Amino acid sequence: MASNGVTIRDVAARAGVSLGTASRVLSGHPATSPGARSRVTEAAAALGYRPNAQARSLRSTRTHTIGLLVSDVRNPFFADVAHAAEQAALDADYVTLLGNANEDVDQQDRYLETFLTQRVDGVVITPQGRGSGSLDTLIDSGMPIVFADRTVEGLDVPSVTTDSRPGLDEAIAHLAARGHTRIAFIGGPQSISTGRDRHDAFLEAMPAHGLEAAGELIAFGDFREASGTEAAERLLAVPDRPTALLAADNLMAVGALAAVRSHGLTIGADIDLIAFDDTEWFPFLDPPMSVIAHDPGAIGRHAVTLLLRVIGGDTPESVVLPTKFVDRTRAAGSSHG
Amino acid sequence: MASNGVTIRDVAARAGVSLGTASRVLSGHPATSPGARSRVTEAAAALGYRPNAQARSLRSTRTHTIGLLVSDVRNPFFADVAHAAEQAALDADYVTLLGNANEDVDQQDRYLETFLTQRVDGVVITPQGRGSGSLDTLIDSGMPIVFADRTVEGLDVPSVTTDSRPGLDEAIAHLAARGHTRIAFIGGPQSISTGRDRHDAFLEAMPAHGLEAAGELIAFGDFREASGTEAAERLLAVPDRPTALLAADNLMAVGALAAVRSHGLTIGADIDLIAFDDTEWFPFLDPPMSVIAHDPGAIGRHAVTLLLRVIGGDTPESVVLPTKFVDRTRAAGSSHG
Repeated sequence: MASNGVTIRDVAARAGVSLGTASRVLSGHPATSPGARSRVTEAAAALGYRPNAQARSLRSTRTHTIGLLVSDVRNPFFADVAHAAEQAALDADYVTLLGNANEDVDQQDRYLETFLTQRVDGVVITPQGRGSGSLDTLIDSGMPIVFADRTVEGLDVPSVTTDSRPGLDEAIAHLAARGHTRIAFIGGPQSISTGRDRHDAFLEAMPAHGLEAAGELIAFGDFREASGTEAAERLLAVPDRPTALLAADNLMAVGALAAVRSHGLTIGADIDLIAFDDTEWFPFLDPPMSVIAHDPGAIGRHAVTLLLRVIGGDTPESVVLPTKFVDRTRAAGSSHG
Repeated sequence: MASNGVTIRDVAARAGVSLGTASRVLSGHPATSPGARSRVTEAAAALGYRPNAQARSLRSTRTHTIGLLVSDVRNPFFADVAHAAEQAALDADYVTLLGNANEDVDQQDRYLETFLTQRVDGVVITPQGRGSGSLDTLIDSGMPIVFADRTVEGLDVPSVTTDSRPGLDEAIAHLAARGHTRIAFIGGPQSISTGRDRHDAFLEAMPAHGLEAAGELIAFGDFREASGTEAAERLLAVPDRPTALLAADNLMAVGALAAVRSHGLTIGADIDLIAFDDTEWFPFLDPPMSVIAHDPGAIGRHAVTLLLRVIGGDTPESVVLPTKFVDRTRAAGSSHG
């Protein structure tokens, strides 16, 4: 009850709108009509309605916005995660405010602080790692949070991730069947869960197919294109050079492709290249890029579903989605002899 | 104190409003009535009030956030605009909240309302068109706004756009020199300024090079990939089929590429294809895609620079950036005979 005894029901009655409409207008919810807004605000002013106490009791402090912090908005994988999350949120009447960590822990911190001060109702984040405490601050504040794609060790937060193993195992089986023994791996940052996970899966899959994961054939990048070029250059300079490259994300694969081409090597003939993550344009390359695919849309949708449950007071189980190998080698072979 | 000695108290007194109301109006705060806004702005104009010094001391309502509404976050062009804008904003100590209109006017409206209720300090938008009034509401509220890439006719908002003509003229000259006479155009929505502008530039460039822009060789899409495929299918079904396609954005060009390949046609030999907008992977196609390029990073950076000036009380001039044709035909010819 407000201090002067005027309730939100009084405001709704005077404005001639439903309690829900009055609540939405007074909580600043965007889904209200201009007519309802003016009637409710005029009624509230006329009655001297003071919203604070009421707001708390009705949980009308909700902003119906979700903060979504992705690792790199220019990476098509994260753009797809963001798009799917946003559509799922809109379907549930939430607007998504998107932040771009730019694969940078400090920038992650700035966005998390902004989400906190902007009082979003919850946050979906593809974390860069624990950061300088802002992630802990957010969790301590009671903010509903879900991790998407990546997790942070030691933080008990529901997550939607993918299991690298099945797709990576199929990819190594494919390369082994094509006679490759010198298979190189371009890994992601070991400070990031997906970087560690894909590296571990590679180290498991190689001996499972009778192959050696040679230390000289493993190089690490930062999930960005330029680092894929640098890693591929180092690997191609190894005396008994690799005959196949497996890159732990799409951007590093594009970087590796540039290095391979600059050495005058032809993909599919001189060297094989497989990317983790599919993109809509990998099939258009000549030859098309074979990939270990997972579904960014499913990650985004599941993450929002989990977040809405956390906002609603539940403690949902984490979700693990599968990966699969998509072999585009034959398509290339048939069209180019 | 303002440089001419007129203070915000003088403005408030002349307007017959409280100091707080005058401050809110002059700082662009959304919670002001139209009546108060017109009285205060008229009083400020009559007195020659210069807001800068006062505004700085009184403006405690700043959130140091900027709303950035892009047309399609999955389009690499807009992802690049967003990334550049965000970095420019961070350099000026502003955090960018990104919204995705998803090429949809209703979704644009929802984000603009959210930016208003979240009280961002200003908005950069690549508009879908005027929408159902939310853009007018935002402008009327005094919110600092800048248009990026696209504009809306009849709205007096500073903008950063590109001039389609030079790049499109070079592209037509290139196709004419290669002997093409049947050049088809896949245009964008005519409800969007860039859709109209690129269509107009095509209609100007064709006769300038002695070519006819045949009505049957012009088809329109919605700047998305699927619409590019559909438009290309229609154009390839014309009896005397075109020998060159020019698509008004990158995604429609990708869609057209899929149609061309599904017809068993080879780019560079059977048909030429040129895209408006470059992407980092167009050079990796075989043959690489020739493009009419403009600079999304420059658009994003200039837009934030203009917005910060609007927030500071200036009325900056709009910026028009150039386009240029990037010919990747020779690179393809040399590596593939």
